Amino acid sequence: MLLRGRPRALGAAALLLLLLLLIGFFLFGGDPDCELGSEREARRGEGGGGDPGSVPGSPTPRVPSDGRLRPRGAAAFDGVPPADPGGHNRSDCVPPPPPPPKCELLQVAIVCAGHNSSRDVVTLVKSLLFYRKNPLHLHLVTDAVARNILEMLFHTWMVPAVQISFYNADELKPQVSWIPNRHYSGLYGLMKLVLPTALPPDLARVIVLDTDVTFASDIAELWALFAHFSDKQAIGLVENQSDWYLGNLWRNHRPWPALGRGFNTGVILLRLDRLRQAGWEQMWKLTATRELLTLPATSLADQDIFNAVIKEHPWLVQPLPCIWNVQLSDHTLAERCYSEASDLKVIHWNSPKKLRVKNKHVESFRNLYLTFLEYDGNLLRRELFGCPCPPPPGAEQLQQALAQLEEQDSCFEFRQQQLTVHRVHITFLPHKPPPTQPHDVTLVAQLSMERLQMLEALCRHWPGPMSLALYLTDAEAQQFLRFVETSAVLSARQDVAYHVMYREGSLYPINQLRNVALAQALTPYVFLSDIDFLPAHSLYDYLRASIEQLELGGRRKAALVVPAFETLHYRFRFPSFKAELLTLLDAGSLYTFRHHEWPQGHAPTDYARWREAQAPYRVRWAADYEPYVVVPRDCPRYDPRFVGFGWNKVAHIIELDAQEYELLVLPEAFTIHLPHAPSLDITRFRSNPTYRDCLRALKDEFHQDLSRHYGAAALKYLTALQPPRGPT
Amino acid sequence: MLLRGRPRALGAAALLLLLLLLIGFFLFGGDPDCELGSEREARRGEGGGGDPGSVPGSPTPRVPSDGRLRPRGAAAFDGVPPADPGGHNRSDCVPPPPPPPKCELLQVAIVCAGHNSSRDVVTLVKSLLFYRKNPLHLHLVTDAVARNILEMLFHTWMVPAVQISFYNADELKPQVSWIPNRHYSGLYGLMKLVLPTALPPDLARVIVLDTDVTFASDIAELWALFAHFSDKQAIGLVENQSDWYLGNLWRNHRPWPALGRGFNTGVILLRLDRLRQAGWEQMWKLTATRELLTLPATSLADQDIFNAVIKEHPWLVQPLPCIWNVQLSDHTLAERCYSEASDLKVIHWNSPKKLRVKNKHVESFRNLYLTFLEYDGNLLRRELFGCPCPPPPGAEQLQQALAQLEEQDSCFEFRQQQLTVHRVHITFLPHKPPPTQPHDVTLVAQLSMERLQMLEALCRHWPGPMSLALYLTDAEAQQFLRFVETSAVLSARQDVAYHVMYREGSLYPINQLRNVALAQALTPYVFLSDIDFLPAHSLYDYLRASIEQLELGGRRKAALVVPAFETLHYRFRFPSFKAELLTLLDAGSLYTFRHHEWPQGHAPTDYARWREAQAPYRVRWAADYEPYVVVPRDCPRYDPRFVGFGWNKVAHIIELDAQEYELLVLPEAFTIHLPHAPSLDITRFRSNPTYRDCLRALKDEFHQDLSRHYGAAALKYLTALQPPRGPT
Repeated sequence: MLLRGRPRALGAAALLLLLLLLIGFFLFGGDPDCELGSEREARRGEGGGGDPGSVPGSPTPRVPSDGRLRPRGAAAFDGVPPADPGGHNRSDCVPPPPPPPKCELLQVAIVCAGHNSSRDVVTLVKSLLFYRKNPLHLHLVTDAVARNILEMLFHTWMVPAVQISFYNADELKPQVSWIPNRHYSGLYGLMKLVLPTALPPDLARVIVLDTDVTFASDIAELWALFAHFSDKQAIGLVENQSDWYLGNLWRNHRPWPALGRGFNTGVILLRLDRLRQAGWEQMWKLTATRELLTLPATSLADQDIFNAVIKEHPWLVQPLPCIWNVQLSDHTLAERCYSEASDLKVIHWNSPKKLRVKNKHVESFRNLYLTFLEYDGNLLRRELFGCPCPPPPGAEQLQQALAQLEEQDSCFEFRQQQLTVHRVHITFLPHKPPPTQPHDVTLVAQLSMERLQMLEALCRHWPGPMSLALYLTDAEAQQFLRFVETSAVLSARQDVAYHVMYREGSLYPINQLRNVALAQALTPYVFLSDIDFLPAHSLYDYLRASIEQLELGGRRKAALVVPAFETLHYRFRFPSFKAELLTLLDAGSLYTFRHHEWPQGHAPTDYARWREAQAPYRVRWAADYEPYVVVPRDCPRYDPRFVGFGWNKVAHIIELDAQEYELLVLPEAFTIHLPHAPSLDITRFRSNPTYRDCLRALKDEFHQDLSRHYGAAALKYLTALQPPRGPT
Repeated sequence: MLLRGRPRALGAAALLLLLLLLIGFFLFGGDPDCELGSEREARRGEGGGGDPGSVPGSPTPRVPSDGRLRPRGAAAFDGVPPADPGGHNRSDCVPPPPPPPKCELLQVAIVCAGHNSSRDVVTLVKSLLFYRKNPLHLHLVTDAVARNILEMLFHTWMVPAVQISFYNADELKPQVSWIPNRHYSGLYGLMKLVLPTALPPDLARVIVLDTDVTFASDIAELWALFAHFSDKQAIGLVENQSDWYLGNLWRNHRPWPALGRGFNTGVILLRLDRLRQAGWEQMWKLTATRELLTLPATSLADQDIFNAVIKEHPWLVQPLPCIWNVQLSDHTLAERCYSEASDLKVIHWNSPKKLRVKNKHVESFRNLYLTFLEYDGNLLRRELFGCPCPPPPGAEQLQQALAQLEEQDSCFEFRQQQLTVHRVHITFLPHKPPPTQPHDVTLVAQLSMERLQMLEALCRHWPGPMSLALYLTDAEAQQFLRFVETSAVLSARQDVAYHVMYREGSLYPINQLRNVALAQALTPYVFLSDIDFLPAHSLYDYLRASIEQLELGGRRKAALVVPAFETLHYRFRFPSFKAELLTLLDAGSLYTFRHHEWPQGHAPTDYARWREAQAPYRVRWAADYEPYVVVPRDCPRYDPRFVGFGWNKVAHIIELDAQEYELLVLPEAFTIHLPHAPSLDITRFRSNPTYRDCLRALKDEFHQDLSRHYGAAALKYLTALQPPRGPT
């Protein structure tokens, strides 16, 4: 039967309605898996804001695990397995969140305090840089220790398209120090609460990260989730993957209030602008103050307070997919998250046990973490294609200088090595310098992996402060860390500062290393030693007494010479006193240093006179002299042009002499060289004529520079110049 | 004015039409950038297949550069800049190709021949494994050298969810050897042509990779592009990024025929099933034969023939986005590809210059390559979550054995180290063993980085074959490679085989290393030495003569003892003859080995008798004897339970004695130990009582095993057992 006239119009209207429904279905609900996150969250946000009562009825926010969005009915995390999309290939219809525009600057904030956290930050940042394709601005809230370390590190890292800003955590302390807190992260754990006020007022969005997270994906994908925020939402968080906030872990377990399982604050998307507008500061302080009337302290630091505020104002929060914060404490439900996802985005070692956490897949997570722990950070100095970013400070000059080198120059490799800016991580391990004493001396030396076994003996011989520069790869730095941790002798010492300079290039940058160790010495005097020497047990005390006695602190400009000896035996009885040493010398068990190979290096010390000396005596500089000396910390730096083997100490002693340092030999001081195989650099020096030619050229240039600086006074060094053979 | 009755029905119909249009617009054409790739490609494929003439008119296939699909009008690669989508965010509407199902097995084929390509394959595979989330099946078409290397490598790598199949390239040679070819890859470069017949007949799809590509993304994304193939397309390829096939590079440059710029075959998606059905074998042979009537040879190996076939049958090819094969030759147009893409998927070092190629961004590409070159391959032993895959052979037993270890056991670390399966890359560098001689001897030793400087001297002292095991990280293996390449002495030697065992664990697996070097020796006899010894210059000749003279090849089972001495000086004149050595010994410039520290290690050699000896003499085993010996290659292996320092050689000599090897001291043989600093292991042994306790426990267990094997005959070793001190 056909419809006509009015009925026909009615039919058309019915069809129209059907079509509208169809359109609605196709556009907004066609596939049960397809729903644009931002709209869905907007709707929930609006509803939730006005009616907080509606949320507790559904305590677990529906958090998708795979970064894709699901219908509200499908549970991901409350024990119910996720809805099977029935063979539907979800990726056919659900677009991923739009990535940020190609060169958009992404903002990241991290709170970091102390030596160990500073190392953690580096690993986090490496994982971030490995996957990132956008320029980044890192906002680092640090204590003085971390700032000192990270400032030098990023300055020398020179990663393109990374800006760094520092914020003084100590200035922020008063804002949170009134909160009693039991969490292992201490006061710094609370500092994320004050970011909206601490960060620049024009900063609208920031991703906040704990130092114990590791990225396995591009942070831009996380940044893109800001687009899902409704108009009011200001905090993006991943649900907690433990039962902590359910409050049933043990009898009388009373956690802070939270929505259902609560949220984990290891990874936060913050709309700072909205938080400021919403009066965040008053908001969290009010909530915290109120809860602290009945609760004695926070257990999980900032996280307790974030959760309490969210419980009260659920419209603030945008739940994020769980893969953006896979929490690897013991007994977490993280497996439910990652086992259904094909992909992991961020893992979070949110347990004080860290890599020793119990999880049946921990080996895999550990491997991802170790990947970045041991990753050569130099490789992250890569440009972003097509993003015009200002180069890191100094990078352009460096590029120009490198471009001017000529590959045909026999010294090409040496000059390239000299120009190399090595990443430097000062005080790599915890370090507590002793209180400053007016005559104190720091032993300064440098080493690489193959001399690590010298450290324990050195610690036994030198009870005073040390500043040691280590030339290591990122992976070796971790071996070094384990070496110190498993050594009772080394881990007992807190006055030894270890500075890691990361390896790059084929020649050992010996003088750059010495300069790093020297610059980090904190006492007024330094003993410039080498790692294969063991000083007399009494040397530390004797040097301090001598400095005092000689009144070096005053007008007197002097370098105190510590006579050097050598043994050829692996094991030998180290002499306790000068008399014992002289006996060994006479017996042929000891020699004066390089007696056979390079006597002129130490001849001016005048060992014959030293045998008899009762008081310090002055010696004169002579060609090729390279004694081990004690000097004020502000002494001239080593000349970085000397890399690898040869002339690196000789040039420094010339500088001291040119600057009119008296050379005073100490009658009771001595230090003894232990045997080792020749270094690779000395082997190259011996077998490679280019190496020797180049060293000659570098010496000439050094003398030219010397004449330029010191004028006619430098002439004596040039006339004393002998055909080169080979000091170290 | 309101419409009524019929007009109203008309209005409704008009509205209906409008709505239908709107629906159509939203669903099928809303955004000019939105077109489902598979549909578009299907349409093109169908058209192209029936009408080959339509393709040459548009010589450059439209290849999108960023992995997303564009309207047909937008050019990406023919000089015209890509169409700007007018601020439209493309990702809002264009879905990426559907990823393969979570645990789908992806098939990859690689042709690999020789030592250098085997190293390249490892880097490629590391990059592949780093990003992959699917199980993989690698089909390796190899010559005997590569098979030998890669079989051992993958066997010891034990990566979960990776299957390996080998195919004998030499058997495939006749199918391509008739083609004259000028490309540097040689005959193996042509072998990709025969994959459809060489690979198993039930294998339908495979991704074919050159050894010089590096992945920067998950290969599953590449696999997903199979879904874009039309019904007939069988070969997915990226357009060439050079002008080679345009034929205007120089006067009389006559390349093989190709569609426009042609395609690059460094990365290929092959539908093997369709190729077989289409008669691929006849197809390419016909084309090649015909072209070779006028062209003298292929210039670019398989690529010339692939392109000629495609020119003739353009319906075969599905062009792939350029980011899947960014070609880094000099003068390529690769920059146009990657500079507009935010992302790179695969880079291809398709120039004989490899990493020295000219490209203004080469530093960044190099960093990506170095990332995987130096990446610790052990970290890739990670499971795929939720993909049930059979574990690699031996993995389960290993897991069980490790699970049975007790952490409280003082030997826990030792037993863990013993059980560790180290990745082994045999013949890491090119190696040409000399023709087999009946009395030839290979010097067998092991070392780590800190002994690298010994190699040149060793080569000067030992002109015969050597088999050396090196204990290195992946990064150190590259340093080692550069060290050999820059040494004239080392790079001149082709009879020295270097086997890399990759580092894992904290103790030096000395006996596992020795066993690897021993197993790879190819001569009938081996000289079991240590890296810090230099043999007499005449030793190699003398040993061969002695073996012949003593008729060791026959019934006689003997170990020839090479007496060991030591010097304490860095530099010394190495004695040419026994008489000279005796003079130095008398002068106190040389000592018998470990004369001061551990005389019992070599006392049974009877140095007094050796002074006078004119002929080989037999000595008896005694406790702690650990001489350096020459034995047949099939001698007992070293006991791997001894790791780190202590008893590793002593136990081996006991085994020799238990198996009734005569111990014959050679009167003219000698070897001299050079000084070096104590190893980390010996330092730990000395300072750590647990270390010493454990060594005692391991010795007891060794003796128990000995009694089990040799019964009462082994009793003498137990009764001779002395309280342990410490041999190496």
